[in-house]
Amino acid sequence: MKQSQLFTKTQRNAPKDEPSVNAKLLIRAGFVDKLMAGVYTLLPLGLRVMKKIENIIREEMNAIGGQELFMPTLQPKENWLKTGRWDAMDDLYKVKDKSDRKFALGPTHEEIIVPLAKRFVNSYKDLPFAAYQFQNKFRMELRAKSGILRGREFMMKDLYSFHLNQEDLDSYYEKAKTAYFNIFDRAGLKDQTFLTFASGGTFSKYSHEFQTATSAGEDTIYICSKCSLAVNKEIKPEVKTCPECSGKDFREEKAIEVGNIFKLGTKYSAPFDLAVKDEKGEKKTLIMGCYGIGLGRLMGTVAEVYSDEKGLSWPESVAPFAVHLLSLNKNEEAEKLYNELTEKGVEVLYDDREASAGEKFADADLIGISYQLIISEKTLEENKVEIKNRKTGEKSFIKFNASEIIKYLNLGKHAQ
Amino acid sequence: MKQSQLFTKTQRNAPKDEPSVNAKLLIRAGFVDKLMAGVYTLLPLGLRVMKKIENIIREEMNAIGGQELFMPTLQPKENWLKTGRWDAMDDLYKVKDKSDRKFALGPTHEEIIVPLAKRFVNSYKDLPFAAYQFQNKFRMELRAKSGILRGREFMMKDLYSFHLNQEDLDSYYEKAKTAYFNIFDRAGLKDQTFLTFASGGTFSKYSHEFQTATSAGEDTIYICSKCSLAVNKEIKPEVKTCPECSGKDFREEKAIEVGNIFKLGTKYSAPFDLAVKDEKGEKKTLIMGCYGIGLGRLMGTVAEVYSDEKGLSWPESVAPFAVHLLSLNKNEEAEKLYNELTEKGVEVLYDDREASAGEKFADADLIGISYQLIISEKTLEENKVEIKNRKTGEKSFIKFNASEIIKYLNLGKHAQ
Repeated sequence: MKQSQLFTKTQRNAPKDEPSVNAKLLIRAGFVDKLMAGVYTLLPLGLRVMKKIENIIREEMNAIGGQELFMPTLQPKENWLKTGRWDAMDDLYKVKDKSDRKFALGPTHEEIIVPLAKRFVNSYKDLPFAAYQFQNKFRMELRAKSGILRGREFMMKDLYSFHLNQEDLDSYYEKAKTAYFNIFDRAGLKDQTFLTFASGGTFSKYSHEFQTATSAGEDTIYICSKCSLAVNKEIKPEVKTCPECSGKDFREEKAIEVGNIFKLGTKYSAPFDLAVKDEKGEKKTLIMGCYGIGLGRLMGTVAEVYSDEKGLSWPESVAPFAVHLLSLNKNEEAEKLYNELTEKGVEVLYDDREASAGEKFADADLIGISYQLIISEKTLEENKVEIKNRKTGEKSFIKFNASEIIKYLNLGKHAQ
Repeated sequence: MKQSQLFTKTQRNAPKDEPSVNAKLLIRAGFVDKLMAGVYTLLPLGLRVMKKIENIIREEMNAIGGQELFMPTLQPKENWLKTGRWDAMDDLYKVKDKSDRKFALGPTHEEIIVPLAKRFVNSYKDLPFAAYQFQNKFRMELRAKSGILRGREFMMKDLYSFHLNQEDLDSYYEKAKTAYFNIFDRAGLKDQTFLTFASGGTFSKYSHEFQTATSAGEDTIYICSKCSLAVNKEIKPEVKTCPECSGKDFREEKAIEVGNIFKLGTKYSAPFDLAVKDEKGEKKTLIMGCYGIGLGRLMGTVAEVYSDEKGLSWPESVAPFAVHLLSLNKNEEAEKLYNELTEKGVEVLYDDREASAGEKFADADLIGISYQLIISEKTLEENKVEIKNRKTGEKSFIKFNASEIIKYLNLGKHAQ
């Protein structure tokens, strides 16, 4: 895409009422726009990052047999009364229509997927199965101060699994755990993300969170120095030794909860009487698991972890474009390369604007695409392109040739 | 995908409270589930169709320079007061938080994109531009009787364009018109869809609708027998001759409005004072256009147009899978072909269930994938596969070989 045509622009200053680093940077770089506290527009650059994250998650959910669907936001009050959450859930947005019928704006979808499953599950042979969606969720957060980490409206992947018995849930739960590790690895958060024991809820003593260590975190975790398992501060008083390796040495870190997985048991299947007969003809209420990832939160976490004083610095896997092509008064030659790279399937943001070299460099560092390709009179004298690694600052000079550049940057995996 | 693993199933009967043909069929075939009047879950098969439609629209929007973004559902009351629509719009869902701050659930996004544009447009040089999104919209429809054609919550593509003057809008508007024709052509509705003059609103005498002729339509249009332009019943009394060719001979048809495009003028830019100085230094309020397509409505329209007494019969471009592979007690051989086709990038729904041939045929006809590949003892005797065209019923026998099948069905364009 040509940057001259991008309708958004970088901004020198972030809004004064925006306290969080992630949102400050994302707003200044033109990835998101703040409509009000906890509610953001994804601008073209931000939406591209979000789609990359979405595709990583989709691939990993499909790999563990998840079937994608899309459930409604407007949810009948009756369903929420059935599980007791109409009154119990404090941050539920409620809305009514002219006939005074009341709905919840979905903050999660157990109340919808359980009766849906009931329509299709007639026998133990229909089990297990798992279904997921990407969808905007709504929660009445009054203190939304963490940028896109905690929104009133936020994009979430929620997976629900249905099982005949506990053993089957346990086995699927381990698969989901692995899928979650794959997702955070692929999003560039491998070294910072820890499986964390947290308070469990109704049916299991503990649940599992995936926590990414960063000073921007709202949570505090204790990481076992022996096996890297972590424990959330909320349960640390009762957990003295590491539940994995019995280690006793922990280090404290601030962290962001980027995902969580729960064994729900029959908490939601029982109220809707979601049950089948097993092989012996005995009625069994289905056992469920649920598995969430907030996409905006994950994007905000990557922004917190991958940024420096100059701006954002995306991992290749989620960068809005593969390369940022900067023309320093050499638009004719740059355009040629832009067309060649684009034709070969490389995603290029091409800075063709009438602007100074300094402005282009500063904007490129702020936007944070992993590689900058710089074309100037100087590089062209030697028939070359300068390639700058945004993160390390390392510079190389490569032949002015699309195929050479693709080979050098190992972009073959992205390109066609 | 293996059909034995699909958690949804076909149903013999549609819900009794579902009056519309599109929803009846889509529910029976397992594409959608009705949560309540006007609110549907997209099940895995339905979501696949929706994503195909979304991609067609995305390609055509990108081709006319549209930049994709994603705006919030929760919209501040203040923005809606500014345009006067907080009180004027009868079907607006309103919601409030604990501090009694009020929001609209976005039924459309002028109130959001105009102040957003104001932050980035500083000069006439920033014009024109156009931005679009795919997003769930909310409208308080109390008489939601047309299945997925008219929802309280519905997926919509909305494009907004911004211009310095009327001429520029006029020229972009023609491009958008062409893009819309491309979309409906690609979705299989070319022969049934007519550009239709309708009431215009504030700034232009008429707006344009795209109406698809079908007996399920809620609208009535009059199609010029000479040039195929149509006129909506609502303005026909004042339009005696065809606005395009002055023809006087019209035929009446029921039709579904699958898209509409509007010249908004300064209706929304003026209240937010979205203006720039032109080349002469004169202040100019921006001229806008807006362009909508309801994706669920388009899917429902295709379902109405492409169905028969046996069920759905999707055009290839939007079918949930490219082929439906039916194994008649020959799962070993069928699985081999399934794996080969899948590896070559063909989207296959593979009916590997333990079910009778009759049940498999009936389900395949109900689900309506364009081509059925049938593998039975009989076809294998001659080392062949039977290929049935769902729409025409035409049968062919092709060599039992993935490449031959891909070549015969011209699936190369879908496959890798």
